[in-house]
Amino acid sequence: MRTIDLNCDMGESFGAYRIGQDQEIVKYISSANIACGFHAGDPKTMDETVNLAIKHGVKIGAHPGYPDLNGFGRRKMVLTPEETYQLIVYQVGALLGFVKVNNGELSHVKPHGALYNLAAKDEKIATAIATAVYQVDPTLTLYGLSNSKLTEAGEKVGLTVAHEVFADRTYQADGTLTPRSEPNALLTDSSDAVDQVLQMIKTSTVTDTNGTSIPIKVDTVCLHGDGPHALAFAQQLHQRLSIENIKW
Amino acid sequence: MRTIDLNCDMGESFGAYRIGQDQEIVKYISSANIACGFHAGDPKTMDETVNLAIKHGVKIGAHPGYPDLNGFGRRKMVLTPEETYQLIVYQVGALLGFVKVNNGELSHVKPHGALYNLAAKDEKIATAIATAVYQVDPTLTLYGLSNSKLTEAGEKVGLTVAHEVFADRTYQADGTLTPRSEPNALLTDSSDAVDQVLQMIKTSTVTDTNGTSIPIKVDTVCLHGDGPHALAFAQQLHQRLSIENIKW
Amino acid sequence: MRTIDLNCDMGESFGAYRIGQDQEIVKYISSANIACGFHAGDPKTMDETVNLAIKHGVKIGAHPGYPDLNGFGRRKMVLTPEETYQLIVYQVGALLGFVKVNNGELSHVKPHGALYNLAAKDEKIATAIATAVYQVDPTLTLYGLSNSKLTEAGEKVGLTVAHEVFADRTYQADGTLTPRSEPNALLTDSSDAVDQVLQMIKTSTVTDTNGTSIPIKVDTVCLHGDGPHALAFAQQLHQRLSIENIKW
Amino acid sequence: MRTIDLNCDMGESFGAYRIGQDQEIVKYISSANIACGFHAGDPKTMDETVNLAIKHGVKIGAHPGYPDLNGFGRRKMVLTPEETYQLIVYQVGALLGFVKVNNGELSHVKPHGALYNLAAKDEKIATAIATAVYQVDPTLTLYGLSNSKLTEAGEKVGLTVAHEVFADRTYQADGTLTPRSEPNALLTDSSDAVDQVLQMIKTSTVTDTNGTSIPIKVDTVCLHGDGPHALAFAQQLHQRLSIENIKW
Repeated sequence: MRTIDLNCDMGESFGAYRIGQDQEIVKYISSANIACGFHAGDPKTMDETVNLAIKHGVKIGAHPGYPDLNGFGRRKMVLTPEETYQLIVYQVGALLGFVKVNNGELSHVKPHGALYNLAAKDEKIATAIATAVYQVDPTLTLYGLSNSKLTEAGEKVGLTVAHEVFADRTYQADGTLTPRSEPNALLTDSSDAVDQVLQMIKTSTVTDTNGTSIPIKVDTVCLHGDGPHALAFAQQLHQRLSIENIKW
Repeated sequence: MRTIDLNCDMGESFGAYRIGQDQEIVKYISSANIACGFHAGDPKTMDETVNLAIKHGVKIGAHPGYPDLNGFGRRKMVLTPEETYQLIVYQVGALLGFVKVNNGELSHVKPHGALYNLAAKDEKIATAIATAVYQVDPTLTLYGLSNSKLTEAGEKVGLTVAHEVFADRTYQADGTLTPRSEPNALLTDSSDAVDQVLQMIKTSTVTDTNGTSIPIKVDTVCLHGDGPHALAFAQQLHQRLSIENIKW
Repeated sequence: MRTIDLNCDMGESFGAYRIGQDQEIVKYISSANIACGFHAGDPKTMDETVNLAIKHGVKIGAHPGYPDLNGFGRRKMVLTPEETYQLIVYQVGALLGFVKVNNGELSHVKPHGALYNLAAKDEKIATAIATAVYQVDPTLTLYGLSNSKLTEAGEKVGLTVAHEVFADRTYQADGTLTPRSEPNALLTDSSDAVDQVLQMIKTSTVTDTNGTSIPIKVDTVCLHGDGPHALAFAQQLHQRLSIENIKW
Repeated sequence: MRTIDLNCDMGESFGAYRIGQDQEIVKYISSANIACGFHAGDPKTMDETVNLAIKHGVKIGAHPGYPDLNGFGRRKMVLTPEETYQLIVYQVGALLGFVKVNNGELSHVKPHGALYNLAAKDEKIATAIATAVYQVDPTLTLYGLSNSKLTEAGEKVGLTVAHEVFADRTYQADGTLTPRSEPNALLTDSSDAVDQVLQMIKTSTVTDTNGTSIPIKVDTVCLHGDGPHALAFAQQLHQRLSIENIKW
């Protein structure tokens, strides 16, 4: 019986501000990527989210991002590799504090937003992140865009990596995601998205925007935790995975 | 041969801003309390300061404070015990990240500024801090004002505590520090300060502002890392400790 | 025909985070208190909210708070009167920028949260705030808790003040609000709240928690912009004011 | 008698952190660019620096930067033109608050660091900044790199602009500054720097790194406020300007 990891960004609330439906989405995933206080999250939210993940038997990951709460970590900042390395160490360490006091275990690290995107393409930044994760704990798994500079750098430093795919994003001929600025960047029909996930899991291929089937590595699927259709999609995907006898 | 711990707050620079003479003062101490990014310090400074401490064989402590960089953690903020607990876990965890990547060991935690002062008097806040430290790692030592609510709370939760005394502050009849607002709060003559430290170490007493000798517990002496006379005082103290055959 | 000012806190969103239903509540008020980026709000939100207020013919006020986004300005910080003065000048100035570029007019200032509460009781902090507002622009109106140190300080420095009352909060014998920690702090029935507002407007009295009618000054009524019942209450109050021939 | 404007970045301290020698350098300049709290500066520093400028009869400018205190505004952030516009309005407004309470007058705006550099090359960002300044107050002068997209955008929206030159930086054949990464980016000899300034003022040319004389517009010269030689250079430049009968 095949197994697939389903991950979701969580713990993105901040003070009086709420984002996401963590209490609900946690039931549909196997791995939680928890914001670490720079682009989202605060000490209270981190404590509660680690707790929530443990309660539901969901793996705990750190989800570090740029120090830009106002931009939710989605605005690129030009940091040196050294600054990026230290950014990761700080945030992974902070989450580790909450993992320890809740008697949990840290399983993985996935960079957030603009940092995730840059790490997919920029070898030096990717290496800085991978090195930080490895030096904090070499048994951690590094999540990155499938077939990217980040997964490459992770493997090079000796980490286990998880190649991540997206259910509702389309892929270009070179295996990269179609930029959100393009009209066909998203699969808007949830059945199409479920179909794409199943194809990726079962055949390790994805059909690109030209209609050609291209190879893709698939270790983990990213679910979105917010938006009105997030839960409905998660349920639909679960149903299909059950039918196909794939565990998560 | 008697041993005394000499501690100093370090790593208080932030970005382009420099505070302290860490490269020099590190030679005169046995324990460094390293700022964790809330009242002072940033990821780069934390990384470098942990490294500096390791290089000089100085014990590494976390020095968490209020999230108030503009006030340098010296302005009281009214946080709940739960918020205080989470504040400590976050910051100690963040420093732990840098300790891990530098192959060091975290030895202690000392709260900073207004948080240190409140923890000395407020049992609930003291307990929140002690609990956070214990749950992150029960082998850590908790530094607090000698004979305060904080050292009391530390002992109650099962931590080793270090009773901290100040070389250049005067003490009142009840064993508390004379508030800085009083004219006689400080020992301005460095010889008097050295004498006071020696009396405290050798006799476990201090002469209060009324001239009466009162008992005081002494595990660690706080040196100041900035100010024009910091290094000169450290040297003077070292000389005297050597003469008295006290190791640090 | 009598006129009453209805005010509401607005522009409290921050980056990706939404709070309030500004687009709806703006239709029911005559004055908007706009967050200035310290406890809530950001440059984009301030720009849009000033614009929204102008479009609806609603008076624009600055709503400065403590520099504590994580605590939403509801946690007391111990700042000196001088620091408080500068805090106000900075935030009122920042909002003034957006008022200018949108060709609007700044009409008033109302401190937020813990700062509002402290200013109601602490004469020095109240005077610092009033002085800041007066020196930025002596024609601004200062909003404060009815009969508080803040309205007193405002009058003393030469400002027009607006005594603010709350629809859904109960009052104690001395005219102060019943603390939220008390069980009877809130009027949970919206009809009771409407009745209280009408009594306050028409008779300049309020019935305290002992059932005694006490005098109260009433220039402006605070509506809440969030919560599930905010709009329904605003509509109910409008209906009643129309019947009573009171304009807003 | 010819006149030249000498400007300097000021008010860059933050809380307990000191940068610059504002009390001294203010004596040698005609225009102060005051940090606005995002990349440097805080309400107290802004208040004091505005005051200092007024006391010395120095023109007051706003010096807005990216919201990145840790990077001192020197790290590029990818903001949209709209976000950049709002960033400028907020910070100029905040400084305006302090100008008003100190009965001063705001004279100019000069973007800081990475924002200054980007605005010199990027037309959309330059236009966003110029529009923000114009809409806050069309009588303000916009300072920008000589012959850059920023001065161009300023003129286009109808502002008076000041073409800024640097005493100690070398220029390339196309009139742009030699990047700091190049070995010959700086004039290390202060006499050479004074000579360069005089050539620029008297002939509106500069000798580029190839030894060719190229035209350059010169309205204002940037002095640096920190560094060990800042005051000595300022004195040397003053002496030479006096000899040449040029006023500042």
